[in-house]
Amino acid sequence: MKIQHLIKQHQLGLLFQQGSFGLEKESQRVYQDGSVVTTEHPKCFGNRSYHPYIQTDFAESQLELITPPNKNLEDSLRWLSAIHEVVLRSLPEDEFIFPLSMPAGLPSDELIKVAQLDNPEDVAYREHLVQSYGKNKQMVSGIHYNFQLDPALIQTLFNLQQEQKSAVDFQNNLYLKMAKNFLRYQWVLLYLLSATPTVESNYFKGSSPLGKGEYVRSLRSSKYGYVNDPEVIVSFDSLEQYAESLEHWVKSGKLIAEKEFYSNVRLRGAKKARDLIQNGIKYLEFRLFDLNPFEQYGMSLADARFIHHFVLLMIWLDEMPDQQGVELGRSRLAEVALENPLAQTAYREEGEWLLNQLISMLQSIGADQSAVSFVREKLAQFADPGLTLCGRLVQEIEQKGGYQKLGAMFARQYKAKAFERFYALTAFDNMELSTQALMFDLIQQGISVEILDERDQFLRLQFGEHVEYVKNGNMTSKDSYISPLIMENKVVTKKVLEKAGFNVPQSQEFTSVKQAIAGYSLFEKRAVVIKPKSTNYGLGITIFQQGVNNREDFAKAVEIAFREDKEIMVEDYLVGTEYRFFVLGEETLAVLLRVPANIVGDGIHTVAELVAQKNTHPLRGDGSRTPLKKIALGDIEQLQLKEQGLTVESIPAKDQIVQLRANSNISTGGDSIDITDEMHLSYKQLAVGIAKAMGAAVCGVDLIISDLKEPAQPDLSSWGVIEANFNPMMMMHIFPYAGQSRRLTRNVINMLFPEVK
Amino acid sequence: MKIQHLIKQHQLGLLFQQGSFGLEKESQRVYQDGSVVTTEHPKCFGNRSYHPYIQTDFAESQLELITPPNKNLEDSLRWLSAIHEVVLRSLPEDEFIFPLSMPAGLPSDELIKVAQLDNPEDVAYREHLVQSYGKNKQMVSGIHYNFQLDPALIQTLFNLQQEQKSAVDFQNNLYLKMAKNFLRYQWVLLYLLSATPTVESNYFKGSSPLGKGEYVRSLRSSKYGYVNDPEVIVSFDSLEQYAESLEHWVKSGKLIAEKEFYSNVRLRGAKKARDLIQNGIKYLEFRLFDLNPFEQYGMSLADARFIHHFVLLMIWLDEMPDQQGVELGRSRLAEVALENPLAQTAYREEGEWLLNQLISMLQSIGADQSAVSFVREKLAQFADPGLTLCGRLVQEIEQKGGYQKLGAMFARQYKAKAFERFYALTAFDNMELSTQALMFDLIQQGISVEILDERDQFLRLQFGEHVEYVKNGNMTSKDSYISPLIMENKVVTKKVLEKAGFNVPQSQEFTSVKQAIAGYSLFEKRAVVIKPKSTNYGLGITIFQQGVNNREDFAKAVEIAFREDKEIMVEDYLVGTEYRFFVLGEETLAVLLRVPANIVGDGIHTVAELVAQKNTHPLRGDGSRTPLKKIALGDIEQLQLKEQGLTVESIPAKDQIVQLRANSNISTGGDSIDITDEMHLSYKQLAVGIAKAMGAAVCGVDLIISDLKEPAQPDLSSWGVIEANFNPMMMMHIFPYAGQSRRLTRNVINMLFPEVK
Repeated sequence: MKIQHLIKQHQLGLLFQQGSFGLEKESQRVYQDGSVVTTEHPKCFGNRSYHPYIQTDFAESQLELITPPNKNLEDSLRWLSAIHEVVLRSLPEDEFIFPLSMPAGLPSDELIKVAQLDNPEDVAYREHLVQSYGKNKQMVSGIHYNFQLDPALIQTLFNLQQEQKSAVDFQNNLYLKMAKNFLRYQWVLLYLLSATPTVESNYFKGSSPLGKGEYVRSLRSSKYGYVNDPEVIVSFDSLEQYAESLEHWVKSGKLIAEKEFYSNVRLRGAKKARDLIQNGIKYLEFRLFDLNPFEQYGMSLADARFIHHFVLLMIWLDEMPDQQGVELGRSRLAEVALENPLAQTAYREEGEWLLNQLISMLQSIGADQSAVSFVREKLAQFADPGLTLCGRLVQEIEQKGGYQKLGAMFARQYKAKAFERFYALTAFDNMELSTQALMFDLIQQGISVEILDERDQFLRLQFGEHVEYVKNGNMTSKDSYISPLIMENKVVTKKVLEKAGFNVPQSQEFTSVKQAIAGYSLFEKRAVVIKPKSTNYGLGITIFQQGVNNREDFAKAVEIAFREDKEIMVEDYLVGTEYRFFVLGEETLAVLLRVPANIVGDGIHTVAELVAQKNTHPLRGDGSRTPLKKIALGDIEQLQLKEQGLTVESIPAKDQIVQLRANSNISTGGDSIDITDEMHLSYKQLAVGIAKAMGAAVCGVDLIISDLKEPAQPDLSSWGVIEANFNPMMMMHIFPYAGQSRRLTRNVINMLFPEVK
Repeated sequence: MKIQHLIKQHQLGLLFQQGSFGLEKESQRVYQDGSVVTTEHPKCFGNRSYHPYIQTDFAESQLELITPPNKNLEDSLRWLSAIHEVVLRSLPEDEFIFPLSMPAGLPSDELIKVAQLDNPEDVAYREHLVQSYGKNKQMVSGIHYNFQLDPALIQTLFNLQQEQKSAVDFQNNLYLKMAKNFLRYQWVLLYLLSATPTVESNYFKGSSPLGKGEYVRSLRSSKYGYVNDPEVIVSFDSLEQYAESLEHWVKSGKLIAEKEFYSNVRLRGAKKARDLIQNGIKYLEFRLFDLNPFEQYGMSLADARFIHHFVLLMIWLDEMPDQQGVELGRSRLAEVALENPLAQTAYREEGEWLLNQLISMLQSIGADQSAVSFVREKLAQFADPGLTLCGRLVQEIEQKGGYQKLGAMFARQYKAKAFERFYALTAFDNMELSTQALMFDLIQQGISVEILDERDQFLRLQFGEHVEYVKNGNMTSKDSYISPLIMENKVVTKKVLEKAGFNVPQSQEFTSVKQAIAGYSLFEKRAVVIKPKSTNYGLGITIFQQGVNNREDFAKAVEIAFREDKEIMVEDYLVGTEYRFFVLGEETLAVLLRVPANIVGDGIHTVAELVAQKNTHPLRGDGSRTPLKKIALGDIEQLQLKEQGLTVESIPAKDQIVQLRANSNISTGGDSIDITDEMHLSYKQLAVGIAKAMGAAVCGVDLIISDLKEPAQPDLSSWGVIEANFNPMMMMHIFPYAGQSRRLTRNVINMLFPEVK
């Protein structure tokens, strides 16, 4: 198969580099000293019988985190980051994720719990492994790297050649070539990327084979790792032979099942090897990789790209080893695994030759210059083994005083880092915080989520066969088309709510003093506010809180308002405070009080200092990347201060509340205060009724209430509805400035998928 | 009750003029000669047991058209117009609406069918009336004018007085005053507005009481009209006495029921008079008014306003007649009714006095100057009876050669006028045509419709307790919130449709020649179109209809595209024609072909002449007020002609099709051609599937199809989906340029109210 030739001749470089990627990362949950936990898999991750992202491998303590397939590696690593953040923030406070492949601080055998899976076969299989390999070996972790070539590439190459008649055979041979060359040259990747130079001595059943201060390149890939009996040799010469030899070892009892064959390459596409002959190999799984402890989540993007290019080289090369070559590769791997990581490898020449081949391939296919540079860096590591990952790791272990200690240190660091922006999903930070929160909960609960449009906050959710779409965090199929249209139109909203019997303030506009005064009788005895249509700093506003009682006062207020504008409004005045009710279905889930930007004096600090101090709150930021906003000290705030006879340099008295804004928006530094539990039930019921009248499944209802402790009365002096909002904000409830957090995204998920849990 | 005084003192003029109005207009269906039809009430008007707008009165032939209550008279008259248009366009071709109150060309008694109502009591009541009054009198028609004072006025007045302790009593007395003064002075309205000077002699059982050439002011209000036995005197002195006397007449058998009391004022608010004492009179019904044949729909807005002010005067006046005064009013009415319409009335002085009172009231309450002027015009009619409505009518009858003939002439005129813009509902022409069409169907079928926001096309529909909202003709609760959001986002739409297995064309963008050519292998063998991202007059476009077969051709096309823009697109090319599928629920209801603006040559006329000729089509107009648009001859059309080697002065050969636009939009003069029946079923099913995949209840699906007669194949060479649209246009299907009309608004109604019919 002259793949290289065809790709060059037909300039298929772009297509050659396309593909699909998936990562599966195992790791141990550990305590803060790095020792493996003895607790069960956390309940909050839902049921492992379906969880697409968070599974356990061999033991209850051994997490397996799985990214969905992606067309590019950037996305795979974003997913890896997101899943890690979910796990790290969900673990008990005293649990961490161990960043190294070899387990440290192993409990005694009887305390290592085999994963408690629903399927009895899965459990039986694990029990068998315990018999064959012992529990400790099973606790070793790694990263599995799944790669699929673009089907269009395979199709194009097939069309361009004449040798093979069957498209499936062609595809199988292509992947077999990749697998065989990988097995032949895998030691090169091991040399560059291995990271298991040592382990605590209690890992070994007997005494440690490593002397004090002795290190190897990869315990995990050595005979001390989790590898098959060396007697088990499986042929990769053809799929037929592959299937036959696997069946042979299962029949002979050396393997309990085909899946017990732990090759560093697995052929994927069918459960039984024999079925691959008909179905075709769909993708390959590479299982060689140790966790990289210097990376927060076990593998860097650059290394992931390097591995991609490396496996492409495996079909680019004109050579294809026979079974003898494959065995040569395996024994060379075993050898290199036990080399001293700070010494040069015995096979340096072959390694350098291979990376030079890789460079020439990358140049031929028009890969990024950065990819070529990265290979050159790796190339230099043959001359200087101290630069390899394992070389660096050994030096670090020496410095930090031991393997477990180093691992524990990183584990604590990475967990702390995952909490830095605890309200966000860092990898998806270009989306709205509410969508990030929703994705967090979906990943945690094990509902598949696909981002259909990142900028548009458009998600596709799937659980079993059940598909839902969500936009902007809570726009879903549960709302009808007409209900946001009603809410969008304030006139229609008022009419609908009024007809349904809710207290809706009325307003009337006038264009002349005479006309307004002629309308006096419309407002007599009513509590109204008279104001210019375009209000400016509150000028021209008169409030008749006790009702208008005589024409003269009314006329005077009208005249004052007309001094500021050519149109005025007479509006029902509502006595009380505005609250936001978040309604979902039959329930008011959260009630929020929004307080204008403010500081509380301490008699010592200036306004400016108090603002700076308040702005250090972790939820406050400048843009849209935090749930709350910093208080500014701009013109509007200074004017507000001036009205109170203050400047930024004033020192407010102790407990003096200084308001810095007239408006209560969170976006201008306002405080959000959850008062769900304080609010009288009757208003919560009213909010539900209002949402129902709008036909809304999710609705943000703004009520003005005169006394939140007293039951609602039927007139405007008790309460009134100001607005009903579709797609209401959730972050201010999830992360309020004060009061209890209400995790509304979970309610959205329950609404969409009542069958989950 | 010094109402006048209170209103003046407290400047309640504005509130005094507010109120609620409703009109009920009876009229006979007639043939084109003006003779009453013998056909049944048309089936298309649905069931009279619930119809809010279109009922029958006494006979099957006698329509009763009812406007909903409105806060202003303009709206009442708009509704009257709309209901008339619905009726006139729904009647059989040979039926019309008679514009005069007295029926002409009456069939013989046995051919006059009493209204076939569901309720046996209603039918029995009508049978009784036949016995008491004879059928002919029952066939007389009029307009009933319902008026309610603003409840806030009544409340305010009540608060300002001390005499009465009970608010209900106060309200009842206010309305009673209005009723009594009305009965006292109604002859003035009769003098000014009556329009039944004569009738064909067969109306009378015996010979006509009118000599040849003899006319009266109002046969309808005279003893020859439909009036109670003069013996039946009902007291209006108090509600108690009113109820008592009515009960007496029913008990005595003079009236079969209270409703048989045909006073020109009816007290409304309860079925039984006695219940009014507790419930309160809610509004008054004035039944005096003859149809005005000079008005298309029986009453002018100016007269309706005049009547409003007249009834307000009835409580403004300080006087309140006793029962004697009421009886005086009744006898004066009977007298004036039989006066010669061209002679001055015997009571001119009282009439002029009353109208002067009216003028002074209007000035006191700050009414429009136009209202005062209108009363002055009416005032002048006392001096010149020929200017009264009846005076003018008599002259017209003389000129046109008879009562029936004149009526028939108007009836034909008004029906023709109602067809002038047959695709619109003239009174609601500031709304979209599709909303007008929907309202037409709702009025016809008898589903209540309220306009919540006219500019926003927001309707509230109600049938029994079932309420629905509609925006823009087909945005309803039947669609989910998420489905228009999916359709709004083209990327998401593509992903959803692709995932669901539909043929979706793909496209890729490139920013350099090199990058595009590197992507060659992605497009090999595919039918694609290569084009600059911003296309301009089709420059730089290359189409590979048979698939790209070599790199050189591809590279050349890429270079050509890059000459026009800095970005190019390579897009799957779809062979075929674009069709719009209108899907509702499980069905494709309409399929439309849109053809770019064009004319067909005749070998005689120039392009300009042919365009002008095509533009005379009744569906074509300039703005948004017609379903189709006129073809322009602007720069774009002239450039299009130039490309074909033509100018506006060219004379195309016979049958030569000259295209004037590249785009097929209806809005630029395109033709809409219904091809629903020609389209192969398989595509209609695909369109339904596509709408379903979007979760849409109503969806406009744009497919490109290579051959509409051949069944759909699974690949893009057979068909592809271009777009799915929410809130799809309906007018182009309802009023296509060619092919069958599809009345989609009816399907929308059936979807919302499956229980109707």
